Amino acid sequence: MGELNRREFLRNGSLLVSGMTASYHLAPAIAAQISEVGDSTAVRVQPLEDGWEFVRMPLDGPWQAWSDQPLAPWQSVTIPHCFNSYDGCDPDVPAYRGKGWYRRRVAPVNPYPNGRTLLHFEGVGQSAAVYVGNSLAMMHTGGYDEFVVDITDMARVPENSDKHGLRLSVECDNSPDLNRMPSDLSDFTLYGGLYRAVRLVHVPAVALEMVHIEVKASAEQPASVRVRARIHNPLQVQGSAYVTTAITDPKGKLIEQSQSIFPLWDGVKEIASVMVSTPELWSPRMPGLYECAVTLRTDYGDSVQRERFGIRYFEFQEHGPFFLNGERLLLRGTHRHQDHAGCAAAMTAEQIRSEMEMIRRMGANFIRLAHYQQPQEVLDLCDELGILVWEELPWCRAGVGGAEFQHQGREKLRTMIEQHYNHPSIILWGLGNEDDWPGEYPALDRESIRNFMSELNAVAHEIDPGRSTSFRRCDFARDIPDVYSPSIWAGWYGGRYQNYQASLESAREQVKHLLHIEWGADSHAGRHAEDPYKLLAGIRQGDTAERGLVFESHGGPARVSRDGDWSETYACDLFDWHLKTQESLLWLAGAAQWIFKDFTTPLRVENPIPRVNQKGVVARDLTAKESYYVFQSYWSEEPIVHIYGHSWPVRWGKPEESRLVRVYSNCQAVELFLNGKSVGVHKRDSLDFPCAGLRWKIAFLAGENTLLAEGKDASGHTVTDTIHFHYQTEAWGEPSELRLLQLGRVNDVVRVEATLHDGKGVLCLDARDRVRFTLAGEGQLVDNLGTVGGSRVVELANGRAWIGVKGAAASTAVGVTCKGVVPATLLLS
Amino acid sequence: MGELNRREFLRNGSLLVSGMTASYHLAPAIAAQISEVGDSTAVRVQPLEDGWEFVRMPLDGPWQAWSDQPLAPWQSVTIPHCFNSYDGCDPDVPAYRGKGWYRRRVAPVNPYPNGRTLLHFEGVGQSAAVYVGNSLAMMHTGGYDEFVVDITDMARVPENSDKHGLRLSVECDNSPDLNRMPSDLSDFTLYGGLYRAVRLVHVPAVALEMVHIEVKASAEQPASVRVRARIHNPLQVQGSAYVTTAITDPKGKLIEQSQSIFPLWDGVKEIASVMVSTPELWSPRMPGLYECAVTLRTDYGDSVQRERFGIRYFEFQEHGPFFLNGERLLLRGTHRHQDHAGCAAAMTAEQIRSEMEMIRRMGANFIRLAHYQQPQEVLDLCDELGILVWEELPWCRAGVGGAEFQHQGREKLRTMIEQHYNHPSIILWGLGNEDDWPGEYPALDRESIRNFMSELNAVAHEIDPGRSTSFRRCDFARDIPDVYSPSIWAGWYGGRYQNYQASLESAREQVKHLLHIEWGADSHAGRHAEDPYKLLAGIRQGDTAERGLVFESHGGPARVSRDGDWSETYACDLFDWHLKTQESLLWLAGAAQWIFKDFTTPLRVENPIPRVNQKGVVARDLTAKESYYVFQSYWSEEPIVHIYGHSWPVRWGKPEESRLVRVYSNCQAVELFLNGKSVGVHKRDSLDFPCAGLRWKIAFLAGENTLLAEGKDASGHTVTDTIHFHYQTEAWGEPSELRLLQLGRVNDVVRVEATLHDGKGVLCLDARDRVRFTLAGEGQLVDNLGTVGGSRVVELANGRAWIGVKGAAASTAVGVTCKGVVPATLLLS
Repeated sequence: MGELNRREFLRNGSLLVSGMTASYHLAPAIAAQISEVGDSTAVRVQPLEDGWEFVRMPLDGPWQAWSDQPLAPWQSVTIPHCFNSYDGCDPDVPAYRGKGWYRRRVAPVNPYPNGRTLLHFEGVGQSAAVYVGNSLAMMHTGGYDEFVVDITDMARVPENSDKHGLRLSVECDNSPDLNRMPSDLSDFTLYGGLYRAVRLVHVPAVALEMVHIEVKASAEQPASVRVRARIHNPLQVQGSAYVTTAITDPKGKLIEQSQSIFPLWDGVKEIASVMVSTPELWSPRMPGLYECAVTLRTDYGDSVQRERFGIRYFEFQEHGPFFLNGERLLLRGTHRHQDHAGCAAAMTAEQIRSEMEMIRRMGANFIRLAHYQQPQEVLDLCDELGILVWEELPWCRAGVGGAEFQHQGREKLRTMIEQHYNHPSIILWGLGNEDDWPGEYPALDRESIRNFMSELNAVAHEIDPGRSTSFRRCDFARDIPDVYSPSIWAGWYGGRYQNYQASLESAREQVKHLLHIEWGADSHAGRHAEDPYKLLAGIRQGDTAERGLVFESHGGPARVSRDGDWSETYACDLFDWHLKTQESLLWLAGAAQWIFKDFTTPLRVENPIPRVNQKGVVARDLTAKESYYVFQSYWSEEPIVHIYGHSWPVRWGKPEESRLVRVYSNCQAVELFLNGKSVGVHKRDSLDFPCAGLRWKIAFLAGENTLLAEGKDASGHTVTDTIHFHYQTEAWGEPSELRLLQLGRVNDVVRVEATLHDGKGVLCLDARDRVRFTLAGEGQLVDNLGTVGGSRVVELANGRAWIGVKGAAASTAVGVTCKGVVPATLLLS
Repeated sequence: MGELNRREFLRNGSLLVSGMTASYHLAPAIAAQISEVGDSTAVRVQPLEDGWEFVRMPLDGPWQAWSDQPLAPWQSVTIPHCFNSYDGCDPDVPAYRGKGWYRRRVAPVNPYPNGRTLLHFEGVGQSAAVYVGNSLAMMHTGGYDEFVVDITDMARVPENSDKHGLRLSVECDNSPDLNRMPSDLSDFTLYGGLYRAVRLVHVPAVALEMVHIEVKASAEQPASVRVRARIHNPLQVQGSAYVTTAITDPKGKLIEQSQSIFPLWDGVKEIASVMVSTPELWSPRMPGLYECAVTLRTDYGDSVQRERFGIRYFEFQEHGPFFLNGERLLLRGTHRHQDHAGCAAAMTAEQIRSEMEMIRRMGANFIRLAHYQQPQEVLDLCDELGILVWEELPWCRAGVGGAEFQHQGREKLRTMIEQHYNHPSIILWGLGNEDDWPGEYPALDRESIRNFMSELNAVAHEIDPGRSTSFRRCDFARDIPDVYSPSIWAGWYGGRYQNYQASLESAREQVKHLLHIEWGADSHAGRHAEDPYKLLAGIRQGDTAERGLVFESHGGPARVSRDGDWSETYACDLFDWHLKTQESLLWLAGAAQWIFKDFTTPLRVENPIPRVNQKGVVARDLTAKESYYVFQSYWSEEPIVHIYGHSWPVRWGKPEESRLVRVYSNCQAVELFLNGKSVGVHKRDSLDFPCAGLRWKIAFLAGENTLLAEGKDASGHTVTDTIHFHYQTEAWGEPSELRLLQLGRVNDVVRVEATLHDGKGVLCLDARDRVRFTLAGEGQLVDNLGTVGGSRVVELANGRAWIGVKGAAASTAVGVTCKGVVPATLLLS
């Protein structure tokens, strides 16, 4: 069964297994399988996507979920479902944190004699209580790891069913819990809900539960591949197990098949060991995947598990670069949260794939999955696309709590490693982030934090000696993990971006294995600056760390994050400088920009988009900001050319004044044309900042202009890019009045634009005021998307803001208000 | 110190005690005092009203409340403060249930050697954790009883203060708790916050903690008055106590003074016993209050407590009436929640007084305080105004929980009785309400409920043998309490109001002591009907109980609550019938209409005002509905006359058609004038339903009309009432379009009215559609008040709805929408 089938199976669920086998990931405790049982054909794995009902309120217990009394306004939902999909970034109300209940009936039909019926949850925010009928089947704490509930015995109790089926209900709870990671001080939303897949799984009485493939490779051939397995045998039955192990190489060729008979065992058992003499090594450039199929045959039926793995080896050199398969590889990284406009944590497989492919097309070969275990789909895509991974325990900003907190931390680390063990993309187990952050507990106990980190470090190495551990920002414990990143936010939370190299070099000396994790800048999509440095006179050179409250948009020392304009222009320059620097430092292992996509946070309500961290190079709906192309110009292997300013409809200046045109390209040379006329060819020189020399100072026509850039790559291929814009020569005074314009209708959504003008009606092109859209009458604002054009409260971008209105009638009025200026109201037509 | 002073002291706090003494209520555990300490004059009781900051979110602990990091958006508030003051009846979002934190600094200055410093909370919703610095001082569960925290020792720890004072923080939590009464199924909002007074109190090392005055009176004089006291002596000091007891009669005359010396004691001690030979008996008509001042003098300083009490005796006759002081008294009752427009549970003393006085003016002599212990202010007013009280344990709709639930229930009953023991107005300790309500637990365990009720019954009788116990609606346990009320909702949740007497008579046979608690009807203020019976053809005679889900506005059998028009007209007729019936039954002990004032509930989101129980005879802001005057016409001792329809601007019918005019009056005769011309004198006959015969069928002029009613009471005094209205003769068709009109501006609030018209523009006078007001631009709707004119989602009243807009600008647009008709938008001027 090929990859496509496996994936389709996971997505579509039902699968007839006659004459074929299938498997899917099922950790922590159990990896369930589809088995061949003689000639029988049956559904063994049923994704539970439809048929759910949900209510966002506490109930006294599962009996209320099934009460004849309509106590709660149940609504139909499909899984994945996040109960903060709308309010995650509401500008006025913090995202709901509390309980939500899901209910549906299921009809388990187990084809195996004494077979087991399991519920598999891929991740539930943030704590879950699973009920069968009125009985508690399992409590689970932690929003990001998989868990399995064996409901076989409960499913047999008649009271747990009614005439429509077995009653299943799940209480999700994302209210604060001091014992649960991550900390409630975390700078991202702790979402609630069944926001990852849920499946009903039937397995034989004895079945494979986990298959781990341990690979040891080195410059010296051959590679060692050892296969270990654990079985699920809750009835403790005895007997023999016939075990077959088959390994195919990345081209699908069977390279090894072994058969053994064992007595049924407890714990983890090595079931096969193979030497691969000339392995195809996995790398970002060639992410070839082996597959290992294990079949367990007993008197109770068969179970099969297929696991993909890769053969590769890596090394972080002391104070030096990173090597993959013996070759230096600069880790070009970014980050992701599981978060998306409109659905929050409940991203579909298609959305995840689009995002991961976009990350790969940007040129990234590395990602830190922030700040928690992410779905198998994400890791599968990293394996397939060739993106190396730092995956992280959500020990984030918590300091260190009591015994229960620490116990949970150790267990979450174990389960993450166990559940994601086979992914070749993973090289680092991140132990945590910013645990020098004060406030979660009365005092920050450095010694306890060090002790706990050492414990976690030992746990990770014990379970998985083949990978390294890592930590970001906890300087007093930087000697503990294998790889460490201090806080360096040059040009954002401290200093200027020109201080970047000095900060890196200083950090290099302080730890054995430096990786620079988290750097970047916020940018408000659609906001551009002719001079992004105008407001930055007060920023000192020097200290580039994020410390204390510098993440806040007010107070504290002068810094770009507070004093800057949050324009895309500044962000592009900052990214450009960092990338130029990283590429030039041959000793550097790598770095990871924070973060690929804008995401929500309970903090930062004062941001240009309230409650959205805007450091993404794409907006929360995956729309690329200009900075995406800066990365491509350094990292992409496909030729690209991009003129800065696709979302900059009006530039400004005096008549005839020279204005800077930035072009981002990885081509050797680019020629720029203004209004059809060449203004010169520039050669790319990655040390010539900004734009690697691909910049022009030219005078635009007052009014409409067109720019075209043509890039030629080394092989002579040509790529082009074009933008149109207006050049405004009228200067503006103090903002005075808002205006509203109805732009057009797409399907049922009318787009409305607000602009801010001075007393003479001139558009105020540098206005950054915060505006609020309101609506009277029929229809509703399309808001809370966490995007510039999808927020009812938002800062102007170059004097403009816009929003959609859904279901408007003729008399619907849209209003826009802004402190200190005359508001506007528009009756839609 | 007279009553005024005592009250002013409680309200204003600081009091110089030189040469005088003062006391205030301070239960459960402690009643603190102002003491005379030689010549020193000092503030002993500091109401903590100002200087608080609040945040409605969970914090990890008190250290976060004092963190330098601005983790939370603290806002200044004054106490009382309810954190559901705005969202208690939001039509779109359920009221917040979760944590909220309060913080302020205090500067305790205790004038006594080894004196104790106490925090006194009058009631905190619904659970509280009190912190001094980072240390937990006390956890308290239960939203309605008083509690005291002795912070003396914690106040001495330097770490708990900073340079500005002692750090005090309180975490309030109104999230669901299965162990805490009342049930989360309760039909009223479980509010959160410091919604009753908080005080800082300084007492001597040994001080009076509680003074109870036990009164035994009977038809045979004299009355026995026994005074018991408990002292607060946490250091367990030894020595002698000089105790003085002084009793004054209602006229302020000292009738008894005793002095004793005791060794300092543990527990409760009788300190004086007095016989009052010709007592002035307390009654609704003559609510005379005695006062008992106890002074405790020790080496550590003096403490004084003054308690008011009354001398009275009562009896519920078997299957018969109620007697107070040997005379039959029909209990004419209503109910109250602690709830008010704009402030929810955080009512000021002035608001409470206004409400209680309005209840008294209505003519009520009895009240059931639903469904929980209410503030001392309420009981003080009942004492003063002469309103007999059923006060209730919040064992409401809970069935019966486990050991912790039952433990809390017993303790709450104890503390309620202890804290309110001296109030002469209280005659009944209500043990609970509707504990036959299913859903809080998997099953309704009748035997456990009976057992628990018996236990509570025993507790109440043991602590307070002088009062009776009572319960409403739990038929399978009706034999347990002294006084019982079944559910009889004639003409609302079941049957017709004409079935009322039969239901009462049937109930009379089933219990020894019947009191009819909860009867009435919802009414949408401003909605009136020419024929309130038009929709009621399907209502059967018969069963009048509220059962199952009949409280819901849809589904189930035909009933007025679902099928009726919720007009004030129907409600008036229903009240009229009930009052007529009650007054005529000489065996009846009494009844209590549900409820004096509209209040919020998490249920009933589909009500005409969403999430508001509209059974009040006054709106949630105390504006009288028409039904208030129906009660006055039966109960008031002042002469009144009231023409039905003060909020009915447009009546309708054919030209020349006779229309009914209802007049409510307690006068012997009333003369009615239409447009200046007498249409006859009618005599009052309380058995002549409706309006006790004060009704006229007359034809109005098309257009404007004036009605004047003139009533004459027995002593010849004249009272008059006048209304103006329009008589619409145009019939209307199907509703077609909404219109908006700007009515006028009061201060900063513009009033906007929406009307619904048919295709020809005729006002649809019976339209009850639900409309939604929206606003675009500057300003905001004045909403979530729980009143007809203060809700952005509301049902039309006779085709009209209205709302206020605050802070509107010239371009502000108000929209109104309604399913199926053309919406309207209005630009304000």
